[in-house]
Amino acid sequence: MTNTAQQNDLANAIRSLSMDAVEKANSGHPGLPMGCADIATVLFTKVMKFDPANPHWADRDRFILSAGHGSMLLYSSLYLLGYEDMTIDQVKNFRQIGSKTAGHPEFGHATGIETTTGPLGQGLANSVGFAVAEAKLAAEFGSDVVDHHTFVLAGDGCLMEGISQEAISLAGHLKLNKLIVIWDNNNITIDGKVSNADSTDQIARFKAVGWNTIEIDGHDQDAIEKALNDAKASSDKPTLIAAKTTIGFGAPKKAGTEKVHGAPLGAEELAGAKAALGITYPAFEIPATILDAWRAAGTRSQNVRGEWEARLAKSDKKDEFTRRMSGKLPADFAKAMADYKQKLAADKPKVASRKASQMALEVINRAVPETLAGSADLTHSNLTNTPETLPFQADNRLGRYMMYGIREHEMGAAMNGVALHGGLIPYGGTFMVFTDYARPAIRLSALMEQRVIYVMTHDSIGLGEDGPTHQPVEHLTALRAIPQLLVFRPADAMETAECWELAMETADRPSILALSRQNLPAVRTEYSAENKSAKGAYTLVGPADADAVIFATGSEVAIAVEAQKELTEKGISARVVSVPSMELFAKQSDAYKAEVLGKAKARVAVEAGIEMSWSKLLGDKGRFVGMHSFGASGPIDALYAHFGITSKAVVEAVTAQL
Amino acid sequence: MTNTAQQNDLANAIRSLSMDAVEKANSGHPGLPMGCADIATVLFTKVMKFDPANPHWADRDRFILSAGHGSMLLYSSLYLLGYEDMTIDQVKNFRQIGSKTAGHPEFGHATGIETTTGPLGQGLANSVGFAVAEAKLAAEFGSDVVDHHTFVLAGDGCLMEGISQEAISLAGHLKLNKLIVIWDNNNITIDGKVSNADSTDQIARFKAVGWNTIEIDGHDQDAIEKALNDAKASSDKPTLIAAKTTIGFGAPKKAGTEKVHGAPLGAEELAGAKAALGITYPAFEIPATILDAWRAAGTRSQNVRGEWEARLAKSDKKDEFTRRMSGKLPADFAKAMADYKQKLAADKPKVASRKASQMALEVINRAVPETLAGSADLTHSNLTNTPETLPFQADNRLGRYMMYGIREHEMGAAMNGVALHGGLIPYGGTFMVFTDYARPAIRLSALMEQRVIYVMTHDSIGLGEDGPTHQPVEHLTALRAIPQLLVFRPADAMETAECWELAMETADRPSILALSRQNLPAVRTEYSAENKSAKGAYTLVGPADADAVIFATGSEVAIAVEAQKELTEKGISARVVSVPSMELFAKQSDAYKAEVLGKAKARVAVEAGIEMSWSKLLGDKGRFVGMHSFGASGPIDALYAHFGITSKAVVEAVTAQL
Repeated sequence: MTNTAQQNDLANAIRSLSMDAVEKANSGHPGLPMGCADIATVLFTKVMKFDPANPHWADRDRFILSAGHGSMLLYSSLYLLGYEDMTIDQVKNFRQIGSKTAGHPEFGHATGIETTTGPLGQGLANSVGFAVAEAKLAAEFGSDVVDHHTFVLAGDGCLMEGISQEAISLAGHLKLNKLIVIWDNNNITIDGKVSNADSTDQIARFKAVGWNTIEIDGHDQDAIEKALNDAKASSDKPTLIAAKTTIGFGAPKKAGTEKVHGAPLGAEELAGAKAALGITYPAFEIPATILDAWRAAGTRSQNVRGEWEARLAKSDKKDEFTRRMSGKLPADFAKAMADYKQKLAADKPKVASRKASQMALEVINRAVPETLAGSADLTHSNLTNTPETLPFQADNRLGRYMMYGIREHEMGAAMNGVALHGGLIPYGGTFMVFTDYARPAIRLSALMEQRVIYVMTHDSIGLGEDGPTHQPVEHLTALRAIPQLLVFRPADAMETAECWELAMETADRPSILALSRQNLPAVRTEYSAENKSAKGAYTLVGPADADAVIFATGSEVAIAVEAQKELTEKGISARVVSVPSMELFAKQSDAYKAEVLGKAKARVAVEAGIEMSWSKLLGDKGRFVGMHSFGASGPIDALYAHFGITSKAVVEAVTAQL
Repeated sequence: MTNTAQQNDLANAIRSLSMDAVEKANSGHPGLPMGCADIATVLFTKVMKFDPANPHWADRDRFILSAGHGSMLLYSSLYLLGYEDMTIDQVKNFRQIGSKTAGHPEFGHATGIETTTGPLGQGLANSVGFAVAEAKLAAEFGSDVVDHHTFVLAGDGCLMEGISQEAISLAGHLKLNKLIVIWDNNNITIDGKVSNADSTDQIARFKAVGWNTIEIDGHDQDAIEKALNDAKASSDKPTLIAAKTTIGFGAPKKAGTEKVHGAPLGAEELAGAKAALGITYPAFEIPATILDAWRAAGTRSQNVRGEWEARLAKSDKKDEFTRRMSGKLPADFAKAMADYKQKLAADKPKVASRKASQMALEVINRAVPETLAGSADLTHSNLTNTPETLPFQADNRLGRYMMYGIREHEMGAAMNGVALHGGLIPYGGTFMVFTDYARPAIRLSALMEQRVIYVMTHDSIGLGEDGPTHQPVEHLTALRAIPQLLVFRPADAMETAECWELAMETADRPSILALSRQNLPAVRTEYSAENKSAKGAYTLVGPADADAVIFATGSEVAIAVEAQKELTEKGISARVVSVPSMELFAKQSDAYKAEVLGKAKARVAVEAGIEMSWSKLLGDKGRFVGMHSFGASGPIDALYAHFGITSKAVVEAVTAQL
């Protein structure tokens, strides 16, 4: 340890605020902020470029606290650096309702929080998306406009989670040299020593996936600075900096143990830590000399930002870059979609909705240059590619297609990172059943209100012979259960176009498109200037005063239409309501809902999934035609017959109620 | 390639059957069976010990086809080896409803299928559980009774999934030397060359987590045999055999490309492949000489099995081993639980249900020696440990506690492997919100109908300050959506004991226990010989003819009881129904359901989660008190007030209906 008194003072300001805030909240994690204060000090006062006065500066370096439980490290630093919204009162209100200083960093709460972290591994996994976005935008707009680094602080927990392997192997493959991960190598997890549960040689592990590695003492600020600068100089590999630290550095009895990880120090240990660290000032009161030094560091990059503004002003790509970073779609997007929908009305194609999705994407990718396509190794099944989507690779940063590999979880997390970075709209495909693999990332897309579009094909037993491990049954319900997530299940090519349009236009929510493997007839054969799917549910066919209403989604809408015909032939008036999105329907006025529900004496829903998400709409007397168990392996027609998802079953369910 | 004609004939029998079955089904994956036929031939005819005539022999070697899409490799081999239930008709009925030969191997369909695979990485992840079970049982019962290997065939997809890192790092840490993974290193994924998406040095990666590695030509049967025998000799490390293969080996135009992965070869390519391989016999007709050689290999281990039977017969642990492998609980389990519940009725403890779970486990772990406890690094939060549960480690194979590390997904998958192996009952803990991380494994627990017990604590906003990333909101619904899974949410220590009892006694379904962080008052204060939770829902307090019924689970039952009191004071008769398990309630008779629902004019449910899974029970007029969004960071009482989950809200919801 060769730190100067000044270096120690700066780091101890983080430690002091963090200890105090956790103590005041009587809840939280002091161990990481104390252990990583030297790292944060160097990062924020010496290495990273950013401007607290312009926290959304597009070309700022990004910092991702993957070990989100150490949130006080970030909040302390943001306060010290002079971020306007991170007041000392916010620090004092750590972990209270309504504060910007939640238990874990929540995107949108305070500027300087680049992503929501806490679920371990997610931040590291997001960072790959950030670095991809930077590399791609730099290729598109030039390094005079886009040229920044992504720094990650990750703990042993992040590195033990499986998603970390997906993240680092993808980053290594893509040679994301501007991604720098600092591993808080403190040998401690909640249950004790890392060696209780893991014996990984992390350096060898990262080398095996093509990373540059550096090992340092994480309390030696000069060594930290050198390592970070060496990492920034890497031209063809991401870098892991393994920083040996002591968790709870300074705590006289608890440092270096799991006891300091996730609980307040307690008055005595806190006083002992302050004494050991030489902190003599009162709680929450950073002396002016120290605060001034931090604040000066906070203004360090103002000139660099000014130069960047000047370069951007001169760039002929300024308007496009500004639009892209704003998240606004190109002006002609709506027109392109309208033209396409008119063509669909004329053509009435009978195609799988996954194919319809690809057809829509051919329009979208032509009209919207910022889409970043991809698939978790199922491109020709998901049909997520179009002529525009050449692969994004180490030797083609202009590519628009992410070959995510068999890494569904990382795909979701990387898309979160891409969306958070801005300038690109990510979409990615896998089989619907494998939303389970990506679920923690999908939840974060929703929690962070990001425009991330999941293209989930093979959305029911309709996928056929691959059997129950590949057939979603509970997935529509399980996804509809996630707050803020839009789940779309379009019935034909027209609805697929409408749902894609909604997914693209909804800048503050993620969307999932549930798409069929099998061909579907066109049920929407007229052009409509209004996006009918926007209301979530609407009458497709049948009289307003019908005696029966049949709700259906996706591939089962055609079954409902067939049942409606059969009922009409029997003299029973029935109406089919297509429900491309329950979430959007829930938002409609009571009057519209009443209109859609009508006064029907019989209600039936048909969907090749479980009933749970339908119960509210069906009410006491309604009946459900769908799945009541896992699926089975067999040809599609045999499966629909076997599980009784047929127009006959719908007709019977209706007549049983009348 | 130095294979003899005989060796080639044996392997080509697999290739021939696999090509023919896929062609007949017009669906399936010929590439892997053709590429790995040499490996399977050596494994099954030379190396592994098993007895098709006694397929459940407890000390057989296990084979896990982690790359489950290659199912025809397994089905072909099982037929060739003479497994009675794998007839040639089953092979011909590949991928048809009701056949034993589903698209992916389904546990329970045919003997010789040790686990359901298909979702990539799961088989590899299961295998760690198999190897743990073997090591632990060998330590308990001696190597004369338990001494077998676990062989895995995994593809690039398995190794790219994040769960693979959790699996191999845990296996390496635990030095599971009897685990042998063969990597079908064919350089191909669905989207083309592996190098499109991954540049991992797999040998270096496995070495970094403590594995022995061997590289071979996967078409050289002598080399395969030597590698497998070398791997079996490993005394302190699991082994990776990297076998270089050609996907679709023999197919004249498609071999070595993704075109042969997941579609029938087509008549012309199939004929070409057979010609190239020298296969002259008709489809599905293996010549007697070849079939005889396979069948002879199938009887290879009969003597070994006979010797084992003799050793077991002499063992003083025979009865206990037989009971353990049968899955039957010890005879005195019920008595131990009854005694404990009587004590609870006397003590009426006010404890968190996670603490109540630990108290129940203290009884269970004492009475049931086969429990294998564990936690994904949250032992002192999940309270999954008891005095009996010393860690299972490389140097303590008698340990009963799995320190899974921060590997929730592997925990679930390993528990599946442990349960499938038999002889142990696995349970493991993490935070409820992280069921998302383990969801693919939880789904497989349910699909395979395995007794795996998930101890999921911190089950609502009641966990407090950690905030929305850590607070389950949609999880109870999302888990209730999974077919065959039992979701328990007990209200107090007594119900926790009952739910644990049910989870232990239900040998053919997995259970999830959703448990509170916060203390809960005793609401069940009388001893009941009947397990009231067994019916899923029951009247806790209030008259049968009450005007209002309030459904509640877990930590909200106390809120419902408080509301019932307040209503009674207002002169409104109300009844509280505790619903520890919706799944068990759904199975009850209509009469019992009607009794529980009663004739109340008002129905309210209160649960600190979303409404979706309650809608059916609530019906048209019922009201829900619970969550309608993600949670927030704050102290528990503030959160319950903020989100309106209070007795006052319940009272208002009741009175609004009356």
